[in-house]
Amino acid sequence: MGDAAGIGPEIIVRAFALRQAPHAFVLGDMAVLRRAARWLREAGVDTPPLARIAQVADVAELPPGVLPVLEPDGLPAGLGQVEPGRIDARCGAAAAACVRAAVGLVLRGEAAAVVTAPLHKEALAAAGEPYPGHTELLAAESVRHGHPAEVRMMLANEELKTVLVSVHLPLRQAIDAVSFDSVLQTVRIAHAAAAGWGQPQPRIAVAGLNPHAGEGGLFGDEELRCIAPAVVAARALGIDARGPFAPDTVFMRARHAPDHVGEFDLVIAMYHDQGLIPVKYLGVEQGVNVTLGLPFVRTSPDHGTAFDIVGTGRASAASLVAALRMARQLAGA
Amino acid sequence: MGDAAGIGPEIIVRAFALRQAPHAFVLGDMAVLRRAARWLREAGVDTPPLARIAQVADVAELPPGVLPVLEPDGLPAGLGQVEPGRIDARCGAAAAACVRAAVGLVLRGEAAAVVTAPLHKEALAAAGEPYPGHTELLAAESVRHGHPAEVRMMLANEELKTVLVSVHLPLRQAIDAVSFDSVLQTVRIAHAAAAGWGQPQPRIAVAGLNPHAGEGGLFGDEELRCIAPAVVAARALGIDARGPFAPDTVFMRARHAPDHVGEFDLVIAMYHDQGLIPVKYLGVEQGVNVTLGLPFVRTSPDHGTAFDIVGTGRASAASLVAALRMARQLAGA
Repeated sequence: MGDAAGIGPEIIVRAFALRQAPHAFVLGDMAVLRRAARWLREAGVDTPPLARIAQVADVAELPPGVLPVLEPDGLPAGLGQVEPGRIDARCGAAAAACVRAAVGLVLRGEAAAVVTAPLHKEALAAAGEPYPGHTELLAAESVRHGHPAEVRMMLANEELKTVLVSVHLPLRQAIDAVSFDSVLQTVRIAHAAAAGWGQPQPRIAVAGLNPHAGEGGLFGDEELRCIAPAVVAARALGIDARGPFAPDTVFMRARHAPDHVGEFDLVIAMYHDQGLIPVKYLGVEQGVNVTLGLPFVRTSPDHGTAFDIVGTGRASAASLVAALRMARQLAGA
Repeated sequence: MGDAAGIGPEIIVRAFALRQAPHAFVLGDMAVLRRAARWLREAGVDTPPLARIAQVADVAELPPGVLPVLEPDGLPAGLGQVEPGRIDARCGAAAAACVRAAVGLVLRGEAAAVVTAPLHKEALAAAGEPYPGHTELLAAESVRHGHPAEVRMMLANEELKTVLVSVHLPLRQAIDAVSFDSVLQTVRIAHAAAAGWGQPQPRIAVAGLNPHAGEGGLFGDEELRCIAPAVVAARALGIDARGPFAPDTVFMRARHAPDHVGEFDLVIAMYHDQGLIPVKYLGVEQGVNVTLGLPFVRTSPDHGTAFDIVGTGRASAASLVAALRMARQLAGA
């Protein structure tokens, strides 16, 4: 459900209204979702009937078009009355409870994948959670269930999948984070994740860090010192990794489109914007965030809680719908 | 004409054959261009008639579809026999002579713009030229004619124009090159160039350097220390500059396409790949390199001499055609 004061609940209801969430169910609070449905109706949007379920198996019993809600243990009281667009510890606690329940279900095989709606980092912190966001919470829960998890972020749309060596670092520190180990580990995580989604030998392109991938050391030596040796080491492990390639054309070369045959299945990007600029270029709503390295498939829309438009009916479900579609695709569901 | 041993001559002939070079003439060597035309015919490509002209005014006297060749002074002998795909000092000397002649013509008002075909840096060096490439040679020639020139590279296609603070630097040094002065100067050069092509008040977006444009100093402080103050200073000069914006979405926001209204006319990119990844993403052949800050319009295709395919008939004229079109558009010709 994500943060109850954000746009998560209403985009979930909207995705079901659009019949774009087949086989999905929601871990969330019934009152919160009912309120979101009411806002949407007031904005002229048709909404689906909501049904509380007691267990995952009940999903199959519901008629198509009904939104199934499973309320996990530990939801705070009064969630349906929280102020929209405000940081509230109860919302952080509820979001965390939903995530924990989801990890339990997916690891027990009761669900095929986890799709997370946006949460608010400050609400999570206000609830006493030590995790800066979903990804860290999901990794910690996996570890608690006995699955060691080293994660990497993938951003993907229908044309392009990029996996990032680092995420939210200043660019200077992101350069420092490019090492033989970090690049090789990113390639390994991406390779293993692709096997999980039914692509056992993905063609992995590794981007360079510098213009023209350093042009033989002329514009920087990270390619020679770290990236090229990591590619060699990955190949020695049987991984079809190639590169480092010039960053300015490798994403174009990997693009899968009706007018372009992509040369690669995945591109390893050396820093946040290198990978995110091309995926977002054709429209931010198509971008889906995928966490690789977890013992299950996890996707999320590529936007936040959008506190400024909660309840207005303006929030688009497009990225959530794309995240649901990508989760089904990666989980083979 | 560019380097006589590269694909320049054949893509020029091809662009004329496609009738995609209206009003253009070539500064080059007649024998080299005749040889390129012969290669194309052998590869099954129709070629235009070539006509040597003695002065620019003769272009208007030729029937449409004829390729006018003006041979500048200082062309080395035997150019028509150089080995294709090999570095040759004569080719470097000829390319430089053509560029010098072009600058003279455009500054005297006999031409509206200069489009350069690819040259080879090593051939230029072998000819004793102290310039690493076209851009530096053009700037030096402008200075010699009394026009001080501080230049910036713009890469543009039909959807997007990005202007780069720096070009061929290691990423670490490119970060060091982001300063109040360099950002402000790039904005000023871009603004002045746009006035030159008939857009006196372009909407200029300035990208941040760090993820999320630093998120208020959380992921780097270059935005707070340098980039934001440069935007303020540019605005104080009457320039419609805005930002710094998150790098991963600013190019998408600026994109002009049938399905997307661009918010900005130009994006200032903080380093090479930040600006080039989005322009090249939809296909490298559409990208045109434009030098801003010269006292005339100069464009070039976004590729090199492609020594490996010279004479095979495989070289595409698409980027040269785009460069010719962009030159006409920017020069209002």
